Amino acid sequence: MTDHLGVLALTRRTHEMRVLAALRSRGPSSRAQLAEATRLSRTTLSEIVADLVGRGAVVVTDTDAAQRRGSGRPAALLALDPGSAQFLGLDFGHRRVALAIADPSHEVVAQAEVSYDEGSGWDERVERAVALARRLAKEHHLHFGALQGMAAGVTGRSRTAAEPVVARLLAEAFDVDVTVDNNVRFAGLAEASERGSRSSHAIYLHLSDGVGGAVVVDGRLHQGADRVAGEFGHVVVRADGELCRCGKRGCLETVAGIEALAEADPVQLGRAADAVGTVLGAAVMILNPDLIVVGGRVPAERPEILPLIESAVHEGTAGSAGSRPEVRAAVCGPFAGARGSLIAAIHESPLLAGYDGTVFPTVQRETSRRAIG
Amino acid sequence: MTDHLGVLALTRRTHEMRVLAALRSRGPSSRAQLAEATRLSRTTLSEIVADLVGRGAVVVTDTDAAQRRGSGRPAALLALDPGSAQFLGLDFGHRRVALAIADPSHEVVAQAEVSYDEGSGWDERVERAVALARRLAKEHHLHFGALQGMAAGVTGRSRTAAEPVVARLLAEAFDVDVTVDNNVRFAGLAEASERGSRSSHAIYLHLSDGVGGAVVVDGRLHQGADRVAGEFGHVVVRADGELCRCGKRGCLETVAGIEALAEADPVQLGRAADAVGTVLGAAVMILNPDLIVVGGRVPAERPEILPLIESAVHEGTAGSAGSRPEVRAAVCGPFAGARGSLIAAIHESPLLAGYDGTVFPTVQRETSRRAIG
Repeated sequence: MTDHLGVLALTRRTHEMRVLAALRSRGPSSRAQLAEATRLSRTTLSEIVADLVGRGAVVVTDTDAAQRRGSGRPAALLALDPGSAQFLGLDFGHRRVALAIADPSHEVVAQAEVSYDEGSGWDERVERAVALARRLAKEHHLHFGALQGMAAGVTGRSRTAAEPVVARLLAEAFDVDVTVDNNVRFAGLAEASERGSRSSHAIYLHLSDGVGGAVVVDGRLHQGADRVAGEFGHVVVRADGELCRCGKRGCLETVAGIEALAEADPVQLGRAADAVGTVLGAAVMILNPDLIVVGGRVPAERPEILPLIESAVHEGTAGSAGSRPEVRAAVCGPFAGARGSLIAAIHESPLLAGYDGTVFPTVQRETSRRAIG
Repeated sequence: MTDHLGVLALTRRTHEMRVLAALRSRGPSSRAQLAEATRLSRTTLSEIVADLVGRGAVVVTDTDAAQRRGSGRPAALLALDPGSAQFLGLDFGHRRVALAIADPSHEVVAQAEVSYDEGSGWDERVERAVALARRLAKEHHLHFGALQGMAAGVTGRSRTAAEPVVARLLAEAFDVDVTVDNNVRFAGLAEASERGSRSSHAIYLHLSDGVGGAVVVDGRLHQGADRVAGEFGHVVVRADGELCRCGKRGCLETVAGIEALAEADPVQLGRAADAVGTVLGAAVMILNPDLIVVGGRVPAERPEILPLIESAVHEGTAGSAGSRPEVRAAVCGPFAGARGSLIAAIHESPLLAGYDGTVFPTVQRETSRRAIG
C-alpha cells in the first residue's frame, strides 16, 4: 500500500527545494527563468513562489526592465531574502542559554549567549532566550518572518518534564514547531558535522558530571523508539560495582564521570579508560562508526585519558571487518549545543525532510563573523 | 551549498511515485485523469509515462471509448502491469538458494528454493538461481521487463570476496543493479518488518554456528561506515576468555554459539544468557530499540535460553528512560533471508529512495499463495 499523501507532501517539498536551489545558484530570477530552471509547470511554480513570498523567504527585488529587449510589461525579479532568519538553535544550560541563527543559505549569521540564575524557572529562561534572539536579529538586520524551524537543547536525561514546557513556550514566542532534546545529544550532532572531520556514522561520548552521549546514523541524530538513544552512562560495566543514581550497580557513569576521575591516579584513570573502551568497543562492533568524539569535563581536565581510551577501543575491536574509527576530543566549544540544535532544526524542517542528508549547514563560517558573547 | 542534481533526481522519483500511486489507487486511467490526479504538467506526465511504459511497469490496457460521451478520439487507458516482476530477493546459503519475487504493489507473488552442492562455485550457484527465477516467472506468468531492483544475501561476514562476484553475475543476468550483503542481516530486516510486530528500531541477534546480527534504524538496515554494522558475535564479553576465530579472546561467539551451547547444562546456558544480556543490554541503552529478535540454531534447539536472555536484558536496562523492548524468537522461517533481501531491494530502489521508510512490502501474503519448494 502506498502513502499517497506522503508522496504529495514530499513532492511539494522537493518543488520548494528546487525553487530555493535555483534562486541560490542563479541569483535574482524572473518567474519565466525559474520555470525554465526548475522545469515546473507555471501553475505549480506560481503556487510555490506565492507561498515562499508569503513566508518572507523570497522577496521581489526589482524588475528585468534594464536587461529587457522585447516588448511587454517588465517581469518582477525574485530573490532569496538574505535578511530572513530561517533556523534557530538554542542550548539551555544550568546557568545560561546559547543561541545560533542561520539564514536561507544555512549559514550561521549570528550567535550569542546570555546568563540566568541557576534557580530560574522556564518562563524566565525562555524569556531571556527570546529577548536575546530579538536583540541579535535587530543588530544583524534579520527578521523571523520566514522562520522554518527551531530546536532547543535542555540539560538532563531526554524526555524530562521540561521538554513539553520549553517546546510550548518557544512555539508561542516564534510561531514555529520546536524540537526539544537533550543538549548533550545536540552537541554530539555538532561534533559529527564539524567541517574537516564530518562523519555520517559517529558516536559522541560526554564524560562530565553525568555521562551521556549521542549516536549519529546517516548524518542524523539517532533517536530510537522512545527518543532516548545514547544512554552510554548507564551501560553496566562492573557487575558488582558502585550504586548509580539510576538504581543499578556499576554503570559507566560511576566509573568514568568527573567525580570519579577529577583526582584519579594513573591506575584509576587506566581502569576507567578500559571501562570506556569496553562500552565504545561494543558500540563500534554494533554500529561501525568512523568517528568517536569524547567531550565534557573529563577529557578537558584529564586529557591523558584520551590515548588510553583510544587503545582500549582498538583492542576491543581488533579483527573487525570495518576500518578503525578515528578517536578524538571534542572541538566545537561552548556553542556546540546551540550549533547542534540548529543542525537538528534544519534536519527536522518539513521543507528538507525528504532531502536525504545532503544538506548540511556551513556552521563553521560564523567564526569569521562577529560573535556576540 | 545545495545539491541541485540530487533535488532533480528526487523530484523525478517522486513524480514516478505519484503516477504509480495514482494507478494503484485509481485502477486503469487516461492521461488526462492521471494529470488531474497527480497535478503534474502534461509534458512532465508524458515523459514519466513513456519511461514507465518503456520499462514495462505500465501498460496500455484499453481505451475509454465505452464510457466516453463527448466527441473526439478515444483516449488510451493506462494501468500497472500486474505481470511485471518489480523486485527480486535472493538468499544464497551453503547448500541452497532461496528466492522471492514482488509485483508492482510490492506483494510477494512467488517464492521458492533450489539446492546445490556445498562445494559449488559462484557461477554454478548463480546459474541455479537465475534458472529458478526464470522458471518461477514462467509458472506465475511474470516477466522481468520492469525489474526495479534486486538484492542477494550471502553467508559469512560482510564484504567478503564473494560480494562483487555475485553482484556482477546477477547484474549481467538481469540487467539491474544488485545489492549484496550478509544474509543474516537481511534475515534481521525481515524479522523487524514482520507484520504484527513491525518495528522501526530493532536489533536482530543470530546465534548459530557463528554469531551475528543486524541493526534496524528508522525501518532500514543500518549499514555503518564500512557496511559491517551488526558484528555482535565479536563483542568481547570475557576479558580472558577462549580464543575466537577472529583472533581476540572472549568474543560473544565463543560463549553463545551453537558449538558452546548444543549440549550445555542449565548453568552454562544461564552464563551464556548473561553474556548475551550484557551485549544486548548495552545495545539497548545505546540504540533504544523497541524489539529484539533472537534467531538461529541456539533458540531453535535450546528454546529455554530465551526467557533467560530476556531477564538478563531487562536487568541491564533497568532505570532506562526508554520503555522495555519486546524480546522474542525469530518467526520468519527459511525464507527470512530472501524476504529481507526483497525488502532491502525495495529500500535501495532509486524509485523509492527518497520515500522515507513508509513503503513496506506486504511480504506476509505469500503464505496464502503457492510456494514452490
